Amino acid sequence: MKNISITNRTKINRLPKRASYDINVINNILDEAFVCHVGFKIDDQVYIIPTAYGRKDNLIFIHGSKNSRMLKSFSSGDDISISVTLVDGLVLARSAFHHSVNYRSVVIFGKPEEILSKGEKTYALEIIMEHIIAGRWNEVRKPNEKELNATSVFSLKIDEASAKIRTGPSVDDEEDLNLNVWSGILPLKVIAEEPVPSLEFKENISLPDYIKHYRRKHEK
Amino acid sequence: MKNISITNRTKINRLPKRASYDINVINNILDEAFVCHVGFKIDDQVYIIPTAYGRKDNLIFIHGSKNSRMLKSFSSGDDISISVTLVDGLVLARSAFHHSVNYRSVVIFGKPEEILSKGEKTYALEIIMEHIIAGRWNEVRKPNEKELNATSVFSLKIDEASAKIRTGPSVDDEEDLNLNVWSGILPLKVIAEEPVPSLEFKENISLPDYIKHYRRKHEK
Repeated sequence: MKNISITNRTKINRLPKRASYDINVINNILDEAFVCHVGFKIDDQVYIIPTAYGRKDNLIFIHGSKNSRMLKSFSSGDDISISVTLVDGLVLARSAFHHSVNYRSVVIFGKPEEILSKGEKTYALEIIMEHIIAGRWNEVRKPNEKELNATSVFSLKIDEASAKIRTGPSVDDEEDLNLNVWSGILPLKVIAEEPVPSLEFKENISLPDYIKHYRRKHEK
Repeated sequence: MKNISITNRTKINRLPKRASYDINVINNILDEAFVCHVGFKIDDQVYIIPTAYGRKDNLIFIHGSKNSRMLKSFSSGDDISISVTLVDGLVLARSAFHHSVNYRSVVIFGKPEEILSKGEKTYALEIIMEHIIAGRWNEVRKPNEKELNATSVFSLKIDEASAKIRTGPSVDDEEDLNLNVWSGILPLKVIAEEPVPSLEFKENISLPDYIKHYRRKHEK
């Protein structure tokens, strides 16, 4: 276990037993998901936008069009907040009150930094793609100068972050245990279905293993 | 189609062909998901928290402990932002640049209103539970006075909202069509796995159909 420092922003006050500041726990959640929600301000109004991301070491990378309202707002110098959430199941208790969701979530705070050099930008795009579908980058046509110029890429340090996790069985009050209500966990899971080739697909190209065996959970 | 008014906050500037302001499109997305991300401010800092929700007519309901930092912040009078995102697949193009994600997302802006009366609060909790797992509410032990007092419930009108959707096949530049790269869509889907009964489970309680046949997509 390697905890990162707790700040007033990352301290979990509600149900602190569900909190973790262990960087390995945080990274495992960040690695299983690939869509985050980014919270930012424009003219004092809070916006949230979902976007894909990649992680490498203690950095999160996000990218988008250079005309993106969100990415342009990052130059304000305000701290943003990023949230990543995995839903693992429904917790079905005997009382309405004790119903819950099994989940693993991470929140990160910080100032995103723009990546400007062409080389570092390309590397960050590789990290994002490999985070989403490992094995893909080496096969595809790499970004050209025009595409790179149309794209903004930012990094955010994972040094002010926390995880919140609910796991395990449903819990009921003692006096509800005899009620005739089915109780337990209904696990939920993201799966990949049969890949659908593009319209101009060429017969002689076989489906790569990294697509055929795609899954989000990476055993370490 | 029944569009709601577009405001400066909900107008989608990037890739406007992906935008929808049709309330039926928005509601279908809100009904398939059950976890949203809420963006709010405390002392000028943006926070994001994932939480379960329910929808009925033009209202979103969210609830939590009355000590929740998020719910307490709602009394500031600031507008919040809620985002709901469904990920439908990976878009694998022949060039890195044209990779994308098929998704359906909704953003809502507005001022949450606290629900104070015991009857309306209980009804809102029923909406949330039935949104997450339809058929459950009538079976479980309803909230008692103590549980209701420990819970805060808020509603948010869905009258300033927009959807953004990417659907369909991968798209490539003409000059990349002959590259020897597998291209197409890898569909992703949330499924329910085998339910896990609680530890004190009683043999004579059979698994209800609404759990056995649980799925998020509701055909209308």
